[in-house]
Amino acid sequence: MIFLTRRATFSASHYYWNDSWSAEQNERVFGRCANRNGHGHNYTLEVTVSGEPDPVTGFVVDLKGLKDVMEREVLSAFDHKHLNLDVPEFKQANPTTENIAVAVWNRLETAVNAAGAARLSRVRVYETPEIFAEYRGEA
Amino acid sequence: MIFLTRRATFSASHYYWNDSWSAEQNERVFGRCANRNGHGHNYTLEVTVSGEPDPVTGFVVDLKGLKDVMEREVLSAFDHKHLNLDVPEFKQANPTTENIAVAVWNRLETAVNAAGAARLSRVRVYETPEIFAEYRGEA
Amino acid sequence: MIFLTRRATFSASHYYWNDSWSAEQNERVFGRCANRNGHGHNYTLEVTVSGEPDPVTGFVVDLKGLKDVMEREVLSAFDHKHLNLDVPEFKQANPTTENIAVAVWNRLETAVNAAGAARLSRVRVYETPEIFAEYRGEA
Amino acid sequence: MIFLTRRATFSASHYYWNDSWSAEQNERVFGRCANRNGHGHNYTLEVTVSGEPDPVTGFVVDLKGLKDVMEREVLSAFDHKHLNLDVPEFKQANPTTENIAVAVWNRLETAVNAAGAARLSRVRVYETPEIFAEYRGEA
Amino acid sequence: MIFLTRRATFSASHYYWNDSWSAEQNERVFGRCANRNGHGHNYTLEVTVSGEPDPVTGFVVDLKGLKDVMEREVLSAFDHKHLNLDVPEFKQANPTTENIAVAVWNRLETAVNAAGAARLSRVRVYETPEIFAEYRGEA
Amino acid sequence: MIFLTRRATFSASHYYWNDSWSAEQNERVFGRCANRNGHGHNYTLEVTVSGEPDPVTGFVVDLKGLKDVMEREVLSAFDHKHLNLDVPEFKQANPTTENIAVAVWNRLETAVNAAGAARLSRVRVYETPEIFAEYRGEA
Repeated sequence: MIFLTRRATFSASHYYWNDSWSAEQNERVFGRCANRNGHGHNYTLEVTVSGEPDPVTGFVVDLKGLKDVMEREVLSAFDHKHLNLDVPEFKQANPTTENIAVAVWNRLETAVNAAGAARLSRVRVYETPEIFAEYRGEA
Repeated sequence: MIFLTRRATFSASHYYWNDSWSAEQNERVFGRCANRNGHGHNYTLEVTVSGEPDPVTGFVVDLKGLKDVMEREVLSAFDHKHLNLDVPEFKQANPTTENIAVAVWNRLETAVNAAGAARLSRVRVYETPEIFAEYRGEA
Repeated sequence: MIFLTRRATFSASHYYWNDSWSAEQNERVFGRCANRNGHGHNYTLEVTVSGEPDPVTGFVVDLKGLKDVMEREVLSAFDHKHLNLDVPEFKQANPTTENIAVAVWNRLETAVNAAGAARLSRVRVYETPEIFAEYRGEA
Repeated sequence: MIFLTRRATFSASHYYWNDSWSAEQNERVFGRCANRNGHGHNYTLEVTVSGEPDPVTGFVVDLKGLKDVMEREVLSAFDHKHLNLDVPEFKQANPTTENIAVAVWNRLETAVNAAGAARLSRVRVYETPEIFAEYRGEA
Repeated sequence: MIFLTRRATFSASHYYWNDSWSAEQNERVFGRCANRNGHGHNYTLEVTVSGEPDPVTGFVVDLKGLKDVMEREVLSAFDHKHLNLDVPEFKQANPTTENIAVAVWNRLETAVNAAGAARLSRVRVYETPEIFAEYRGEA
Repeated sequence: MIFLTRRATFSASHYYWNDSWSAEQNERVFGRCANRNGHGHNYTLEVTVSGEPDPVTGFVVDLKGLKDVMEREVLSAFDHKHLNLDVPEFKQANPTTENIAVAVWNRLETAVNAAGAARLSRVRVYETPEIFAEYRGEA
């Protein structure tokens, strides 16, 4: 079993807010992230698939195909976007690093697993070099 | 003469737009940056001062003092903000990397030069690791 | 289950030495690290917690709270210090990257686990970009 | 149990090709990597061993010894080489990142495990900062 | 005057050799780089232009246009290539980091300067993170 | 004219102190750096030489020769050392980043300039990724 990871980046805006709270409570919990004009990040995304290398090509996964799936399912929707306003998953849920990792997994799982024998194994999202979240699917 | 550089980061949103143009022209010139919901970056700022090291301390500049000036004059205004909406310099001018570098210089020059013998020498702003602008003042 | 990691840095001195050995044996085993004047590193610390994102906030852990715990329990004791001379854990044991990772885990485990539902999952310490140690607790 | 990782780099050439295919098929599957003049990378190698820290030294593994093993078994054979032409493992199999990770594991396993109580735990190979493969041995 | 820099990467093979020397002399001067099977690097290229920001757009240079020029004039010729065998400039001259920087400058100067008011100011080429060459044109 | 830069790292301890001041004044000016047990850093050193590429080799400077000079004149004296206690230049002057840059220049200038036609052009020292000093010699 080999784990093959491909990295990509996207630049996006977000803010954190809970409509059922007062402005004061939002600011107390979310601090500077509660600025509803938004702020932004250069996110780094790492997508890991696992499997056996094909004996002919030596590939666990076709890297060009994986890049295309990441572009089509995630980057075209997230890059140069405002996550709260432009991405359906974050109309209700805050686009925290944790929730972004889950959303990326959900967007990729079917397409990655349908593309061949490799299986989606791990999604890691860096909001900054100092903060990152990792999701490996349910169970 | 020694050049001493201090680096800092800030996370901010922006978009590019010219009110006197049609939406089509904005999109043709600014591409994905014309999304008025905004997108964002982890900006890296490098501030360079020049001077002679103090013979007693060995410092060209008091690094804690320089950090405080950068925090007070730039980071408190730019970090976790939407540059177009929250920062006066960008009410009219687009917050391009070039214009951000000039704005940072203008915010720092007086305070840095008043703090001691060192002189503000260079401001560099990275929008991403792939794109950065540098300004050294007029003339 | 999501894994959320926060990174921090500290600058510290150390040396390696065994009092029960001769100087020659110390130098043979520890090489240049046996210089008792000490040398130092910019250490990078990664602290990973695991848990379910809170359905309201989207957070596995309050990032500001985690930063405060790391600052109070580890960084205030390690940063700008001589690990052998200033940190109790290393009065007897060498401050190797391995032992630092265990010491950080022990300093953080109770406070992190008491702060909410998230659990301390992993501590990684980089002595340089080329050498790092990881500890996941006992068992 | 502690996981101790040592990183190293090597610069090498490679190409991807299958002799039983036509040139057209090679180009369709391998794209620009099918240029038989070769192209190259600065590879980064991370070797992880696991074990208990020695109570006297605080080391899971002698880092100088690990460096020597990596140099002797891998770097002397891979660095400043053409992987297809100069390295036996890749006379038949393509030097994909996946296959390089397995080859490094196979070259290191015996020597690392013979050197002491620590066990080879993980090999990670970065072809670029954007693509890396990880192998943990047969399960 | 603002200096705007765009970074790109390319992966290529090369070797160093002088046909008028014996194999021994080549190996004495060029060391491991004299392996004529070639070895390779992930090169990083930084292209800097200088000028005044356009008062309407805030751009010194159209970044998409600069990217296209770099792609057309340099990356399409250098990326996934063997510099000695595939690139005309290096049929005679060794593809040292120094000579690559000059070749990139010569390939870009006319196209960059023809694209608008900005002027090509500096080319920097990293062979590895440890070695880089910079060229600013003649005079 | 080409500028060729070689990077290296060293790990060292230091503190800042002025014997003619009280402990209080030292702490007020130097803050946490006044801890006389010392603390440390992974310093990064960049040495830049300038000249014309040799028409036969394509080199501005023999890179192996430059590495040997850096090792002999600087790294053997600074790496795994306590700068205040082990390095003569810092018996009196504080080992600030500024003073280290000047000391490195003074140690390298004669040897680099004697080695061939290239001239020492710039020394840059990073104490951390956030703070660096640059010296280009007198005048």
